Amino acid sequence: MLSKVRIIGSGLIGTSIGLGLVQRGVCVEMVDSDPAMTALAKDLVGGVEVIDPELVVFAMPTSQLAVVIEREFSINSHSTFMDVGSVKNEVVLKIQTISGLSTRFLPTHPMAGREIGGAGSARADLFQGRSWILTPEPECASESKELVLDLITMLGATPIELSAGDHDRAVARISHLPQIAASLLGKQLIGTPADWMELAGQGLRDTTRLAASDPQLWKEIIHTNRAQIEELLISLQNDLMAMIDALDEPEKIEELMQAGQVGRSLIPGKHGGLAREYSFLPIVIDDKPGQLGAIFNECSAMDVNVEDLNIEHSPGQLSALITLSLSQHDAEKLSEHLSSIGWNVHPIRN
Amino acid sequence: MLSKVRIIGSGLIGTSIGLGLVQRGVCVEMVDSDPAMTALAKDLVGGVEVIDPELVVFAMPTSQLAVVIEREFSINSHSTFMDVGSVKNEVVLKIQTISGLSTRFLPTHPMAGREIGGAGSARADLFQGRSWILTPEPECASESKELVLDLITMLGATPIELSAGDHDRAVARISHLPQIAASLLGKQLIGTPADWMELAGQGLRDTTRLAASDPQLWKEIIHTNRAQIEELLISLQNDLMAMIDALDEPEKIEELMQAGQVGRSLIPGKHGGLAREYSFLPIVIDDKPGQLGAIFNECSAMDVNVEDLNIEHSPGQLSALITLSLSQHDAEKLSEHLSSIGWNVHPIRN
Repeated sequence: MLSKVRIIGSGLIGTSIGLGLVQRGVCVEMVDSDPAMTALAKDLVGGVEVIDPELVVFAMPTSQLAVVIEREFSINSHSTFMDVGSVKNEVVLKIQTISGLSTRFLPTHPMAGREIGGAGSARADLFQGRSWILTPEPECASESKELVLDLITMLGATPIELSAGDHDRAVARISHLPQIAASLLGKQLIGTPADWMELAGQGLRDTTRLAASDPQLWKEIIHTNRAQIEELLISLQNDLMAMIDALDEPEKIEELMQAGQVGRSLIPGKHGGLAREYSFLPIVIDDKPGQLGAIFNECSAMDVNVEDLNIEHSPGQLSALITLSLSQHDAEKLSEHLSSIGWNVHPIRN
Repeated sequence: MLSKVRIIGSGLIGTSIGLGLVQRGVCVEMVDSDPAMTALAKDLVGGVEVIDPELVVFAMPTSQLAVVIEREFSINSHSTFMDVGSVKNEVVLKIQTISGLSTRFLPTHPMAGREIGGAGSARADLFQGRSWILTPEPECASESKELVLDLITMLGATPIELSAGDHDRAVARISHLPQIAASLLGKQLIGTPADWMELAGQGLRDTTRLAASDPQLWKEIIHTNRAQIEELLISLQNDLMAMIDALDEPEKIEELMQAGQVGRSLIPGKHGGLAREYSFLPIVIDDKPGQLGAIFNECSAMDVNVEDLNIEHSPGQLSALITLSLSQHDAEKLSEHLSSIGWNVHPIRN
C-alpha cells in the first residue's frame, strides 16, 4: 500500500489529493513554487516532510511541468511519477525525452475540478465517485501502475484506462469543443439591447453556462490540445456553413437539426448507463421558500427518485416553473398524487 | 371587456388560449383545418359557436397563415385579428398586402410553449407569468390594441411592445442562434465511441440540451427568420474561424474566451432584474429519495430562497453532487447550518 507521497503544486487538485491521502493515513508532503501556497497547503494538509517518496504527483499547469519533472526525477531516483493535467499527449512526448523516466511515469487526468480554484477550495472528497483516466505507455512498469491505482482508489475515484491519443480526442470532443462553442455563442450576446436580454429563457442560459469559465485556465487547455481541437472546430465550421447555405431550403435545415437530435441522444444517462429517456413533469409553484421542499417530501413519501430538476423563473413574476426528470412510471405516479393534493401539475412530456 | 373570440388552430397555443379565456367567461369557438383536432379542442374548451367575434386569433404555423387570413378577413368584417407566431416581419408584410387589414391586425408572440405539442398538452395557465410580445404597426387602431391587451392580461401574461423588426432580431439572437448552435454541436457527437461518451459531464449536457427539440418546428422558424439569423451565423462563423486561427497563440485564445465571459454576463437574473451574481453551494448527497426534500426543508426553515439548482450524477456511483444557486448571504447562512447538522457541504463558489 501507498505510504509516502510528494505533491508538487498546491492548487485545488494537488491539495485535494493531499487531504484525501492524509485522511487515509498516507504521509504527504505539499510543495509549491509559491511559498504562500505551500504554507496554506501545509496548514490544510499537514506539515510532514517526506524522504524517498514512493509517488511524486505533479499537480500544476502543463506549461510549468517540463522544468519540474527533470529536477524531481534527479532527486527522487526510485520514485514513481504521475501528473493530473487535462491534456496527455504533450506530457507523453516530454517524458520520452528523459532517459529512464517513461517506465516510471504515468500520465493521468481526474475528471473533477470544474470552475472552483485554489487550495482554499480543496476537499478530501473531490474525486469521490468521479472517473480518473490513466494513459499508461506500454513500457510503464507494473509496480508504478499499482501505486497510481492505489492512489486513485484510495481517493474514491474509478480508474479508466485510455491511450493518451484517445484521451485527448475524447476530451476535445466532450469537453473542449462544448466549452469553445459556449464561449463563442456567449460572445455573440455582446451589444444586445438590455430589453432583448430580458426575454432570454432557460435555453440561452444552458447553452452559454460554460462561457462563464476561467479564460486563463482554458487558454492553456485549448492551446495544449489544439491538434485534436482543430479538426472538430473545422467540422463545426463546415456544418455552420451548411446551415447558412440551407437557410433558403427548409428540408436541408430540418436534416441538420435532425442530425443534432441524433448526436444529442448519444449522451448517456445517469450512473454511466445507456442514454435513458426520462419523462418530464412540469409543476408551477410560488417562487418562495418551502415550495421545493414540500414537493421533494412528496417525492420521498411516494418513493419517487428525481433524476434531474430544472427551475425556470418568469420575468417580473413571483411564480416559477419547475420541471422534474423522472422515469415514466414515477412521473405518472407523482403527477396523479400531486394533482390530487392540489399542486398545479402540468401534463407529462416524454 | 373581451366577450367573443374565434381561435383558428387547435394546437398547444390555440387550445391553451381557448381554455384560459373560457375560464374567464369569454365565449370561444375553436376551429382547425383538421376535423379531429377541432373535435378534441371543442371537447377540451367547450363547443360554442361564435357569431361576429370581436377577436380572431390565428394560432397555426406561419406557412399556413396566408390563405386563412384572407378568408377570415372577408367573413368577419368587423373583427380584430392577431397571430401568435415565432417570427413577425413576414406576417406584417402579408397583412399589408390586404387592403384595410393592417388597422385591425396585431402580430404577437407569447414567450411560452417550448417542446410540448398538441391540444392534449394545452393548459389554461400556459401563459401565466410569461412575456407576450406585441409588434403593432403605427396604423393599428387603438380599439384593436385594447382587445389584444385584454386577451393577454386575462391569460396572466405580461405584454411587451417591440417593433416587428426588433422582435425578429431579438429572438434570432436569444433563441434561434442558441438553438442552431446546440443542434450543430450535438451533430458533432455522431460517431463518438460509447466509452468516450461515458466521460460526458454536465457541461456537454447543458450545451446540447436544445438539440433535442423538434426539427420540424425549427425548420419553419429558422427558415422564416432567415434574414435575421443569417448575419448571426456569419458572425459566429467568423469567431469560429478566429479561434481556429488563434489555436497557436494562447493570448488570442484567451481574448476570445474573455469575450464569451462578457457576453454571458449580460443575461439577466431571475425576475427580469439585472444580471445577478449568485453564490454556488455544492453539496454531496446520497442519490436516493428523501435527500433533496430534506435539504429544501432546511432551506425553508432557514428562510433561504433557492434561485436555481443543478444535479450532477457521477458515472457508476450512487452519490450525486447538487449545487444550489443562492444569494451570497443565504449561501453563507445555509452552508454553516447544513455543515453543523452533518451534511457534506463543499466550499461556496462565487
